[in-house]
Amino acid sequence: MSETSRSGAGRRLEAVSLASQSPRRKELLRALALRVVVIPSDFDEDRAEAAGEPEQLALTFACAKARMAKATGPAVVIAADTVVALDGQIFGKPKGTADAHAMLRALSGREHTVYTAFVVCDRGTGEERSGVESTRVQFSALSDTAITAYVASGDPLDKAGAYGIQGRGGLLVTSIVGDFYTVMGLPLARVGGALAELGYDLWAS
Amino acid sequence: MSETSRSGAGRRLEAVSLASQSPRRKELLRALALRVVVIPSDFDEDRAEAAGEPEQLALTFACAKARMAKATGPAVVIAADTVVALDGQIFGKPKGTADAHAMLRALSGREHTVYTAFVVCDRGTGEERSGVESTRVQFSALSDTAITAYVASGDPLDKAGAYGIQGRGGLLVTSIVGDFYTVMGLPLARVGGALAELGYDLWAS
Repeated sequence: MSETSRSGAGRRLEAVSLASQSPRRKELLRALALRVVVIPSDFDEDRAEAAGEPEQLALTFACAKARMAKATGPAVVIAADTVVALDGQIFGKPKGTADAHAMLRALSGREHTVYTAFVVCDRGTGEERSGVESTRVQFSALSDTAITAYVASGDPLDKAGAYGIQGRGGLLVTSIVGDFYTVMGLPLARVGGALAELGYDLWAS
Repeated sequence: MSETSRSGAGRRLEAVSLASQSPRRKELLRALALRVVVIPSDFDEDRAEAAGEPEQLALTFACAKARMAKATGPAVVIAADTVVALDGQIFGKPKGTADAHAMLRALSGREHTVYTAFVVCDRGTGEERSGVESTRVQFSALSDTAITAYVASGDPLDKAGAYGIQGRGGLLVTSIVGDFYTVMGLPLARVGGALAELGYDLWAS
C-alpha cells in the first residue's frame, strides 16, 4: 500500500452499487474489473414531467436515482442518466416502435448532443461527487430500410434517442466529438476522477 | 427481396472472411450479426521496415494483409491495419512491457491520432474498396501507478500505441474527435459504406 500512498492514489475499489437498470452501465463498470451490484430505486423512469435544459435535466434525474436508491449493496453508489438533445428538443427512451422510428428519422444525417450526468456517492463517508459530460454525435443519412431494420432489432427501445452506439448502432454514427462512453451512458474517465477524489483508485492492486 | 431492391440497398451479407488476427475486429463484425471466419495470411506483422506517413503506412499494411490472405472462407474479405501517430512518430504494437510503458508515458496528457485503414474485397466479382479513417484521441495525465497497473494487465501488449480504448483503457481517454471504432481497429460506418458500394446491405433481412 505504500506505493499507492506515495503516488497520492487511494484505496482499491472492488465493488460498487449501481442505481440504474441499464445493462450497458453494468457492463462498462464490470470491464473495469469491478463487481457490480444493481440496487433497486424508487425513481420512476417516466419522463412525463421532463422540462428544462438537457444538462440540468440529466443531472436532476441522476441525482434522483442516487437519492431514491435502496440502502443495500456496496458503500460506493453510482447513478447516471442520459438524454439526447436535438434543436432544443429532448429525446428520452422511445415510447414504442413508431416513436423510435420518428427519433431516428429526426437524427438521420445530422449532429445531436448526448448528455450523461453521473453521481458517485460514498455511503461510508457521506461524500458525493457529480457532473455532466456532453458529446456531439454525427449520424449518417439513414435509409428507411436501415431505420426499419434497426427498430425491428429491438435495440432502440430501451435507449435514450432510440439508438445505442455499440453493436449495429455503430453503423449509424460517422463521428463524435467528446467522450464515447458518455454516449454509451457512463463517462468512464470522469467517474474514475470522481472516485479518485473520494479516495478510491481504480488502478490500485 | 423487392424491398431491398426498391430502396437501392443490396443483398444480405451473412458472413465475411477477416484477414486479421485481432480479436477486437472479430468482435466488432460479430456485433453486426455477421459470421466471421478468421483467415490466415502470410503477412508479417513485424514493422521493422515501417516508414512513411501514418495514413499511407496503415493502408499499405491493410492492403498487404488482404493480398496475402489465403483464398479460404467467405467471398467477402475484410482487412485492416491501425497505427498511432504522435509528433510524427509512429507507434505500432509495443515490443514488450518496457516499450509499452514508454509509449503510454509519451501519450499521457496529450492528443495523438489513430489511423485505421481498411480493405473490403469481393472475391466473387474481384471488386475492392479501401480507405483510411483518422481519429484524434486526448489522453488524461497518467500516474506511474496507472501505467504500471495497466501494463501489468497485459492489455497493451497486442495493441498499436499500447492501449485499447475499450475496457480499463477507457479510463485513459478523456475525449476523441472522429470515429470511435477507428480507435478500436475497424471504422464500422466506413466499412458498411464500402460494402454497400459492393452491393451488400448490412440492414437487409
